Amino acid sequence: MHVAIPLYPRFTALDAVGPYTVLAFAPGFTVTFVAGQAGPVPDDHGTLRIAATASYADLPAPDVIVVPGGSGTFDALADEALVAWIRQAHEHTRWTTSVCSGSLLLGAAGLLDGLPATSHWAVLDELKKYGAEPVSERVVTSGKIVTGAGVSAGIDMALTLLGQASGEETARSVQLMIEYDPQPPFDSGSAKTASQAMMERALSLLP
Amino acid sequence: MHVAIPLYPRFTALDAVGPYTVLAFAPGFTVTFVAGQAGPVPDDHGTLRIAATASYADLPAPDVIVVPGGSGTFDALADEALVAWIRQAHEHTRWTTSVCSGSLLLGAAGLLDGLPATSHWAVLDELKKYGAEPVSERVVTSGKIVTGAGVSAGIDMALTLLGQASGEETARSVQLMIEYDPQPPFDSGSAKTASQAMMERALSLLP
Repeated sequence: MHVAIPLYPRFTALDAVGPYTVLAFAPGFTVTFVAGQAGPVPDDHGTLRIAATASYADLPAPDVIVVPGGSGTFDALADEALVAWIRQAHEHTRWTTSVCSGSLLLGAAGLLDGLPATSHWAVLDELKKYGAEPVSERVVTSGKIVTGAGVSAGIDMALTLLGQASGEETARSVQLMIEYDPQPPFDSGSAKTASQAMMERALSLLP
Repeated sequence: MHVAIPLYPRFTALDAVGPYTVLAFAPGFTVTFVAGQAGPVPDDHGTLRIAATASYADLPAPDVIVVPGGSGTFDALADEALVAWIRQAHEHTRWTTSVCSGSLLLGAAGLLDGLPATSHWAVLDELKKYGAEPVSERVVTSGKIVTGAGVSAGIDMALTLLGQASGEETARSVQLMIEYDPQPPFDSGSAKTASQAMMERALSLLP
């Protein structure tokens, strides 16, 4: 199963690396980072660079795509090469997935019209612009399209996908390998229970 | 607060990028990836490369170090430049931390003698070689040394650290930004409850 993860300037690193780690450990999966052209792509903080090793043209028909989000998503919506690649790749994929604001890119590619989808809580309503029905859930599956909520939700999204792709036992073995037995020291990860002040404080962290 | 994350060949990407994402979003924190020399460093699957932007010599006295683990840890134990940098940096740090098998590198640097520490479940007992007391917990704090369990535990470790460094409200705001409200689709992340067969299956995934 060939997985392609497109990188664009100011993506959020964990959006890409969470699903990458889950799927790269899965038997029979290969993951390739792609971009407009091969080379290092800077993240939203500008301090991390992950190398894309292929261009969109090099990889027109992967089995799975995982589109990350980030502060750069809004600029990326105008990146016609990226949006066209998503649209075209989707015709061939077994699964088309996103993390965080990456779902807006699926929307811009015309893939979410009339479908339920999720995104980072801060941009969830933006999905309506693309005809999608915003759903405040961790992972939303709609046929072969699987969208995840913000940043860290990519890990849950990828384990859900892997369970569907390779069966529960394989997904469980990857979960044990990456010791995904989360124990957040605080209960503060959901916008459903956050105060307005905390949401504003969180948004102020955006680079 | 200047955070340095050393990268070495065959590190596990999420070990580094989990804590990176938490700390890079925190106000007043800057994170730099370092290595023997600046340049891209390949992870354990060989398919992801993160660029180190500084050498160990460039960054002798960061405020925080986060040492990742990975399949490459055992080779890295013989990397004298890395181990010497950890030992020397520790003299100046406010916090010295690790994720997964990265704690073995803290041990090799002589920092864990007589102290409780954790690691990935598969190598936890190896800590005894360095005089440490292996503890099967998600995050273990011993003075200024904070060790995390396997791979994904780096997110919990970094939030714990951030709570200590900048206060709970800041850590909570970062947690909300990265929507860390984990909902694993399976209950399979802990070696404490895994069957022997599942542990063997998980270990077979090691690249």
